[in-house]
Amino acid sequence: MTKQDILDFIKEQKTAFIGSVDENGYPVIRAMLAPRVIDGNDIYFSTNTSSKKVAQYLANNKACVYFYKRGRFKYQGATLIGDMAVCQDQPTKDKIWRLGDRLFYKKGVTDPDYSVLKFTCKSAEYYCDFKIETVLFD
Amino acid sequence: MTKQDILDFIKEQKTAFIGSVDENGYPVIRAMLAPRVIDGNDIYFSTNTSSKKVAQYLANNKACVYFYKRGRFKYQGATLIGDMAVCQDQPTKDKIWRLGDRLFYKKGVTDPDYSVLKFTCKSAEYYCDFKIETVLFD
Repeated sequence: MTKQDILDFIKEQKTAFIGSVDENGYPVIRAMLAPRVIDGNDIYFSTNTSSKKVAQYLANNKACVYFYKRGRFKYQGATLIGDMAVCQDQPTKDKIWRLGDRLFYKKGVTDPDYSVLKFTCKSAEYYCDFKIETVLFD
Repeated sequence: MTKQDILDFIKEQKTAFIGSVDENGYPVIRAMLAPRVIDGNDIYFSTNTSSKKVAQYLANNKACVYFYKRGRFKYQGATLIGDMAVCQDQPTKDKIWRLGDRLFYKKGVTDPDYSVLKFTCKSAEYYCDFKIETVLFD
């Protein structure tokens, strides 16, 4: 597997799962709609500024993003490990915004409750047929 | 939401996602087939003794188990927070074993590469329609 193979795999998936570590050191998982933008090693999601995950990433930026494809008895999965930044600057918010987002953020692209999560991948593990391959992102 | 509502929701889902924390403090996510047994606050999965997640849980038992159901623009999800035990005692291995498991563990129910993950839930968060409810498991 190469970095490009991993990117091709994740682009096919409609759901992403993001992991954070809470204030007591426990891992937390949440499903997200597929990333808005993938740009080099950076993966962007939109989110609510008031959400618990934003508070968790501001306190501890260690993160993972997981994608999977289910077969009958097994899975293909890619776990990306890296750091999550919470972006509230207008250029980043503009970069990710889509028209339909007004459904979630009534005040539009400048809504203070609209934030961007920017995940920077450092390495990935790809699981398939009970085998694991590690791919470094540099 | 009550504890029973959470249990009813998770029993409907065919895939579970388990979270661990790796040796560098990063969260890690993996998809799993639905739990084998749910018994009180305990949720059981089968796994390979040699797998990385077993090593991670032996070093740090802080865990979460996540279940979700996807709608068009949103998700229902339940994040269960608790501790993960790696069980290698024969009574627990017998409790979870199913006939088809020989496909994965050639030596059968006593295969040393067959282990059981036992997750004990302490609390759950249920997400629906942009609202979160916390339910304590006691």
